[in-house]
Amino acid sequence: MTGRLWGIGVGPGDPELVTLKAARLLAEIPVIAYPAPDEGDSTARMIAASFIPAGRTEIAIRIPMRSGPEPAEIYDRAAEEIAGHLEAGRDVGVLCEGDPFFYGSFIYLHGRLAGRFPCTVVPGVTSLTACAAASGRPLARRDEVLTVIPATLPDAELERRLAATDAAAILKVGRHLPRLKTLLARLNLESLSVYVSHATRPDERVLPLGKAPDGEAPYFSMLLVAKGGAA
Amino acid sequence: MTGRLWGIGVGPGDPELVTLKAARLLAEIPVIAYPAPDEGDSTARMIAASFIPAGRTEIAIRIPMRSGPEPAEIYDRAAEEIAGHLEAGRDVGVLCEGDPFFYGSFIYLHGRLAGRFPCTVVPGVTSLTACAAASGRPLARRDEVLTVIPATLPDAELERRLAATDAAAILKVGRHLPRLKTLLARLNLESLSVYVSHATRPDERVLPLGKAPDGEAPYFSMLLVAKGGAA
Repeated sequence: MTGRLWGIGVGPGDPELVTLKAARLLAEIPVIAYPAPDEGDSTARMIAASFIPAGRTEIAIRIPMRSGPEPAEIYDRAAEEIAGHLEAGRDVGVLCEGDPFFYGSFIYLHGRLAGRFPCTVVPGVTSLTACAAASGRPLARRDEVLTVIPATLPDAELERRLAATDAAAILKVGRHLPRLKTLLARLNLESLSVYVSHATRPDERVLPLGKAPDGEAPYFSMLLVAKGGAA
Repeated sequence: MTGRLWGIGVGPGDPELVTLKAARLLAEIPVIAYPAPDEGDSTARMIAASFIPAGRTEIAIRIPMRSGPEPAEIYDRAAEEIAGHLEAGRDVGVLCEGDPFFYGSFIYLHGRLAGRFPCTVVPGVTSLTACAAASGRPLARRDEVLTVIPATLPDAELERRLAATDAAAILKVGRHLPRLKTLLARLNLESLSVYVSHATRPDERVLPLGKAPDGEAPYFSMLLVAKGGAA
């Protein structure tokens, strides 16, 4: 009997936004893995810290934060380490900020392992709805179309997507913030846009886009655009 | 001191997918409200049942399931009943399936009350990521655009939206399923589409679109379209 691979969403940051199911599984599963920066603490591990009993086997998947080519070999190596535990019959839980299947790095492990081992994904609260809650403004209602757009796309594509939708969430804002500000102002969407960083964390910030910081934003920041305006 | 209005996401159906925060608040807040059908039980109330202490004041907001004009007077009346408790200093928690700000009926109460009373929204796990988890397939990754599309839109608009996106979730499938099947087959997207109903509930069903039921689908069903294909 092999072990089961679990993708476990731990939510957007506030440990109280972990689900009861995730909390139970973290108490039970003998091996946990999580993405971590080159140096320092894993955000997913910090969110889940109080649910992880002492003495668990832990696998930190260290991923360089600088953008560049896909670090395929890092995921290859992590997948093999995880596979070793699964083959020995031990379940492995991979901690995922937000939700495992919503722009999560878990997808890279899933692609490498789900064909070989039983796999269950436990959904979590995404940054998408956490940012909407923090902003105090609905994300989408009734027959509205909501488009989720990575900020990494080129200006022309962002412009086309924003023009064609009722509501939008722009993810992975980070260093793209100055460019997005210019773009949204040009499209007359600035006053309908809200900037949110670190939603549900102690350092959460919610600002009208016009008052958002100059320069780069934190990696965990998002812009919400609602053409329908406030509730 | 007035009370606080809480919009509380209780997740997609499995009571274990309630967050620790929602569970704590449900144990504390003296008045709870929830949408309910004309007759019978409220789904949100059923999900949250084990977290609600006996003897709470409860407000069932009964909304006719048949489509038609916005039942504005129903929300007007519910908002006034809730306002009475808030003015008397009692907090009121409104239970919301999934997330309050993601296509939720809480938005109608929020629009009527958030200007008059302090309001906090507690995000929850949406049906969007619950269906993706059930399907075993990532929702969106890397630089992909994800479009959330209500099935109530006309064919031409659905077609345009589906052509323009990398991944889509079609909500509120219900009686639109036969029409959607025809449309997705015509767009050569049938083999890339998965049908999910009642995700995370005991009667959950996950089927390739080609094997989805004939005729109407349950109200709580969704189609997920991933042009990137399987993981």
